[in-house]
Amino acid sequence: MPNSLSPDLLQKMHAYWRAANYLSVGQIYLQDNPLLDSPLRLEHIKPRLLGHWGTTPGLNFLYVHLNRLINENDLNMMYVIGPGHGGPGIVAQTYLEGSYTERYPAIERNRNGLQKLFRQFSWPSGIPSHVSPETPGSIHEGGELGYSLVHAYGAAFDNPDLIVACIIGDGEAETGALAASWHSNKFLNPARDGVVLPILHLNGFKIANPTVLARISRQELTDLMRGYGYEPHFVEGDDPALMHQSLAGTLDTVLAKIRQIQDVACSLGPAETQKRPRWPMIVLRTPKGWTGPKVVDGKAVEGTWRAHQVPIADFKNPEHLRQLEEWMKSYNVHELFDEQGQFRGELAALAPTGHRRMGSNPHANGGELLEPLTMPHFHDYALEMLQPGSVKAEATRVLGSFLRDVMKHNLDKKNFRLFGPDETASNRLEAVFEVSGKEWMADIEALDVDLSVDGRVMEVLSEHLCEGWLEGYLLTGRHGLFSCYEAFIHIIDSMLNQHAKWLKVSKGIPWRKPIASLNYLLTSHVWRQDHNGFSHQDPGFIDHVANKKSDIVRIYLPPDANCLLSVADHCLRSRHYINVIVAGKQPEWQWLDMDAAVRHCAAGAGIWHWASNESGDPDVVMACAGDVPTLETLAAVSVLRTYVPDIRIRVVNVVDLMVLQPVSEHPHGLEDHDFDALFTIDKPVIFAFHGYPTMIHKLTYRRHNHHNIHVRGYKEEGTTTTPFDMVVLNNLDRYQLALDAIERIPRLNHEVETARARYRNTIERHKRYIGEHGDDMPEVRDWRWEL
Amino acid sequence: MPNSLSPDLLQKMHAYWRAANYLSVGQIYLQDNPLLDSPLRLEHIKPRLLGHWGTTPGLNFLYVHLNRLINENDLNMMYVIGPGHGGPGIVAQTYLEGSYTERYPAIERNRNGLQKLFRQFSWPSGIPSHVSPETPGSIHEGGELGYSLVHAYGAAFDNPDLIVACIIGDGEAETGALAASWHSNKFLNPARDGVVLPILHLNGFKIANPTVLARISRQELTDLMRGYGYEPHFVEGDDPALMHQSLAGTLDTVLAKIRQIQDVACSLGPAETQKRPRWPMIVLRTPKGWTGPKVVDGKAVEGTWRAHQVPIADFKNPEHLRQLEEWMKSYNVHELFDEQGQFRGELAALAPTGHRRMGSNPHANGGELLEPLTMPHFHDYALEMLQPGSVKAEATRVLGSFLRDVMKHNLDKKNFRLFGPDETASNRLEAVFEVSGKEWMADIEALDVDLSVDGRVMEVLSEHLCEGWLEGYLLTGRHGLFSCYEAFIHIIDSMLNQHAKWLKVSKGIPWRKPIASLNYLLTSHVWRQDHNGFSHQDPGFIDHVANKKSDIVRIYLPPDANCLLSVADHCLRSRHYINVIVAGKQPEWQWLDMDAAVRHCAAGAGIWHWASNESGDPDVVMACAGDVPTLETLAAVSVLRTYVPDIRIRVVNVVDLMVLQPVSEHPHGLEDHDFDALFTIDKPVIFAFHGYPTMIHKLTYRRHNHHNIHVRGYKEEGTTTTPFDMVVLNNLDRYQLALDAIERIPRLNHEVETARARYRNTIERHKRYIGEHGDDMPEVRDWRWEL
Repeated sequence: MPNSLSPDLLQKMHAYWRAANYLSVGQIYLQDNPLLDSPLRLEHIKPRLLGHWGTTPGLNFLYVHLNRLINENDLNMMYVIGPGHGGPGIVAQTYLEGSYTERYPAIERNRNGLQKLFRQFSWPSGIPSHVSPETPGSIHEGGELGYSLVHAYGAAFDNPDLIVACIIGDGEAETGALAASWHSNKFLNPARDGVVLPILHLNGFKIANPTVLARISRQELTDLMRGYGYEPHFVEGDDPALMHQSLAGTLDTVLAKIRQIQDVACSLGPAETQKRPRWPMIVLRTPKGWTGPKVVDGKAVEGTWRAHQVPIADFKNPEHLRQLEEWMKSYNVHELFDEQGQFRGELAALAPTGHRRMGSNPHANGGELLEPLTMPHFHDYALEMLQPGSVKAEATRVLGSFLRDVMKHNLDKKNFRLFGPDETASNRLEAVFEVSGKEWMADIEALDVDLSVDGRVMEVLSEHLCEGWLEGYLLTGRHGLFSCYEAFIHIIDSMLNQHAKWLKVSKGIPWRKPIASLNYLLTSHVWRQDHNGFSHQDPGFIDHVANKKSDIVRIYLPPDANCLLSVADHCLRSRHYINVIVAGKQPEWQWLDMDAAVRHCAAGAGIWHWASNESGDPDVVMACAGDVPTLETLAAVSVLRTYVPDIRIRVVNVVDLMVLQPVSEHPHGLEDHDFDALFTIDKPVIFAFHGYPTMIHKLTYRRHNHHNIHVRGYKEEGTTTTPFDMVVLNNLDRYQLALDAIERIPRLNHEVETARARYRNTIERHKRYIGEHGDDMPEVRDWRWEL
Repeated sequence: MPNSLSPDLLQKMHAYWRAANYLSVGQIYLQDNPLLDSPLRLEHIKPRLLGHWGTTPGLNFLYVHLNRLINENDLNMMYVIGPGHGGPGIVAQTYLEGSYTERYPAIERNRNGLQKLFRQFSWPSGIPSHVSPETPGSIHEGGELGYSLVHAYGAAFDNPDLIVACIIGDGEAETGALAASWHSNKFLNPARDGVVLPILHLNGFKIANPTVLARISRQELTDLMRGYGYEPHFVEGDDPALMHQSLAGTLDTVLAKIRQIQDVACSLGPAETQKRPRWPMIVLRTPKGWTGPKVVDGKAVEGTWRAHQVPIADFKNPEHLRQLEEWMKSYNVHELFDEQGQFRGELAALAPTGHRRMGSNPHANGGELLEPLTMPHFHDYALEMLQPGSVKAEATRVLGSFLRDVMKHNLDKKNFRLFGPDETASNRLEAVFEVSGKEWMADIEALDVDLSVDGRVMEVLSEHLCEGWLEGYLLTGRHGLFSCYEAFIHIIDSMLNQHAKWLKVSKGIPWRKPIASLNYLLTSHVWRQDHNGFSHQDPGFIDHVANKKSDIVRIYLPPDANCLLSVADHCLRSRHYINVIVAGKQPEWQWLDMDAAVRHCAAGAGIWHWASNESGDPDVVMACAGDVPTLETLAAVSVLRTYVPDIRIRVVNVVDLMVLQPVSEHPHGLEDHDFDALFTIDKPVIFAFHGYPTMIHKLTYRRHNHHNIHVRGYKEEGTTTTPFDMVVLNNLDRYQLALDAIERIPRLNHEVETARARYRNTIERHKRYIGEHGDDMPEVRDWRWEL
């Protein structure tokens, strides 16, 4: 390959790289003497040495080369890095290009700024040692590994002008999420979407072990990448001069290939039949801790796992101090920075300018680009009803029509997508297919339906990919919704954690603008797993979410279709939250007309007067949250009225779970007097809940009437069985709720024994019936409200 | 390829396959008339049609062929199936071979048994529609997809005689866990371990979409499998006669290759340098719903996603009834079963016998094979101390020595392994490397240390693989421990769910014997992320675990090294639990000598009299759970004594979190009077907790003194900062705890304002100090107990 770089350019790029490496080492080690103006002394070294050197020089090397590519080709490029602990490198690079100082003016581009830049790193209340929301140009939290590539694809969707350079750590590549992410190329359309350029960084080692991909043959690695649908280009070595030319030449080749793919695709247009291209990718093999100390205390460091964090420590050993100084001086700092500590102009000129700088790419601060969705009026999709409980409907099917039109109204903006693991139709949202197909760039056959190279519904049997694509899409300023089976959303518990952390931290950074909320629709929920049984039951995701910072999370349990519409509209308009909506997909009785639903959802919880018969004080509050618990509660009220006609019942429904918390704990929390107005301060409350009962206790333990709140919910019982048997197995059935109420109303003491006997008989009859008939007794298929 | 099967054998195997398919269809559809003795009528059909046909004929096809291979070669083979919804197929096969009736004698091998077999499937209180603990021969819960291959590898480790045939669904193959699992071959030693034979079943479709791997080119799929380190063998088609010969020939070829690999490896021996072989795998491409109805209601079914569940439904349509009858009759049932409904002898003779039947393989009922570990005496590893708080130690390092000897004492049994995502040394457990290396079959280089082809420490940067390997290892009757960073264990939340479900259900199955517990050591915990900061903080895994069935889960928070030893010993001896141990790895003050630790851990919670100074009634109970909260609590006691000398303090430490629950909720729960004896019924309790504070409330809300329990814990605050600053950020620091106590003791009302001012000053001083020095104030580096 002829040399891509002139000797002058090569020499300058090499200097630029040395500058970035110098700043990276400085951040890890120095609290003073940033330009080594005086001999290095112990007091210049930070008291606590925290940071990661190993991956940093490789990341810096790439950044310098991508800068050249951007400049020469006027590229719109983002930099997503999987080896997040390369934080010092990205901070150094964005400082050198000027992006950093624009975001943080106190970190000036002079000696004083360098001093602060070094000191703030891994310093209390400074910046973390890995890429994080504080890092300009990043959409990627560098803590937990595995999500770089899937975020990169999410960023590239619907951004045809964008190239997302994605650096994948070879350790990270061992994770499940990353291993699955390579197949994202079957869901990216070169005529409509941007480009992801995966760069697998074979750094060789993790914390303590070699990496798998660095220890398989080059042939196997080539096969693996080709099997994933990429064409690998190898850049391998440790001699900087050779490596500069090799990487530069490879990037030129790769960009030409990308342009060729795009030209072919654009000549066809996004909606036309596209053949999935073989996208290029790069394998960069460099020594871990490249340019760092080769040997410390007689042990090899460069090129080994010992370079992972802080290669030289324990500065009580004077030899170590000397060795650090020698290492830092090897970068020839005074060739790089002038006497004021300013990066020398002829080097600084290598960086792109303005928004072309990767640290200033607007897509990496998605909130700034965010445009609100054009929303249809959700009232138009309302289910008509003459009275509560008079019609049945599939709530998510009703929502599907609304989502179809959200999709339709925003087709031209190209800023809304729906994500799901093969379940959009199963979850009854298939109306969206009337306006958009499922994105599919793998082979299409004659029998296929609803697949499209230009689809905006993203279906793949991987919750990791759905979640990661959506996160990347949101972080770059777009909108979306993820529908998932309730039990299996736990697969992305940890990804949710990282996104919640991102939202929390970015709220405290003035230049980070709010992004669209991460919206989950959990359906096919715990109570209706007739097909699947126990293995598909778990309502605990909301417990996980409720642990996150209260100004970030919202949990909604709409009891019927109209409430679901109201909640969904609210969530799609909201910003910077994690919204979890739990709603069933099976035909169920409907309760509120649209006006009532809107009022109810706005309040978050309320008395359902039409279902209550209290006059003044109730005997009991029958509370419920969730569609199935609401059905059983209303049926229990019917049972109670039949057997204890003079009982005074208040029905309270909770749709916004966070209202139960004290207002001091959550912004949606009800004031105590409002809570008391709903739940009384002294009456028994029988609370039928969708999830684990302890959730209600942990939300309400500070409330006045907490000791009277008796919760029924999921208690880890279930199998492949009938809908009614599921509630019976978990003691959430109408008969149990009615018995609970009678047992807790003192003036009904004389009824208790009769009620218990009746309960036992009914349940025995139920067991016999389903054993014989394999289906529910007719009497429990309705809610049997006695008007 | 010459034909492997004689015409007679082919004809019989085909009949056997038809029998399995017939029984599968029968399970999905029929409640009566199992042999179609009379014309099919509506009342023979189940009222609720739940089940999955699509994947079943392919699974049946494989089972019949593996039976031949077992018989002809006397193989010890297990059958792990990823497409778990092929449940009816595996039930049919184990019935045909006789394993099923041995486990469930009521399901006789005659007409009466067939009737029951059909009816119980997806019938209330019958059996689920997917593979589950009820299924003989299974170690694999077929609900959530993605874990078949990693379980298969776990089963194969240390079972050199075993071949695990693992059927991977092409939908399942899209998941993160499965995509990563292929690389498990870098951790399996052919001289010591068994064999995993992956069979990728290209069934073509998921619920509603084609699968990615079925829609890439054969070349790409070949490359992918070669890249993962396998040699793919393709068996593709839909003509049964050709497919029988093709699969039979391929299996013979593959077995020969496996034997060759094993011969080479065994000639070297397990500890010698092994070259990683290229293991064979099979790609089986058959139509989804093969042999089922080709067209229903004018729409193609066989070979499409419409065959996924119940291909024909709605039997109010008489044409559907006719079509079902025609379908079932196409298998020629009377050729297969005699007039008594018994499987014909010449066909039944094709099945292996005894333990060679895959439904009776002893490894699939691991509890039966389980041998207890030979345990060193944990007292021998005790940390000596003269008095509480006089020495510092790294608790997990102390544990490491104990684990080293657990490893050593069981080397000859080959039944103990340690699992971790690249963190064994980081978590200070590296003493184990003195007796066993880290398993590594990829390339080894000169600089590497502690790697071994014969290692028993399993390290890979994938929590999914660590968890799945360990589950497979435990389910086949062995022992292990998984050490993990606390925050990132959420990655396997959903896998834990499935394992917990397996344990719960298998407890109710008499022939399933208890297996060794799934033991987690969570270290590098939330309070000590000096390096990593906020992204590495989350103590919520224990919340997730606490939602599981109480007779399955145990959570331990040992406050020091000796307690950790005692707890770990207990966990490694226990059966059929999920044990979570949370313990820090940093140097911390030590509190209990071994005798005290043993007593404390046996009680689960107790008053630390040496730290208390109550005489009679205390003014306040200072409670704590977790190592860092214990440190801060004891320091708070020191602070209180200094400033309020006459205060009467009781210190209560909780090591077994489940003691806090009522005994009605958890078998470890304290009786109310015992709880009251610790926490009083009326004194303020300041509870310093390792995790989210609501956890303590949800465990204790029924206790008498609950309204007096004031909990401090993690509230989602943190960054890269000092250890003490982390507790300050979350209001868990000693000064806050002391202030909390003073504020809640009525007789100290006059102290409150002074105390608050002192608190504010101290925190301001702290903030200034760490801002200037980058490290903690000297005064908080000790716990400063005043004797």
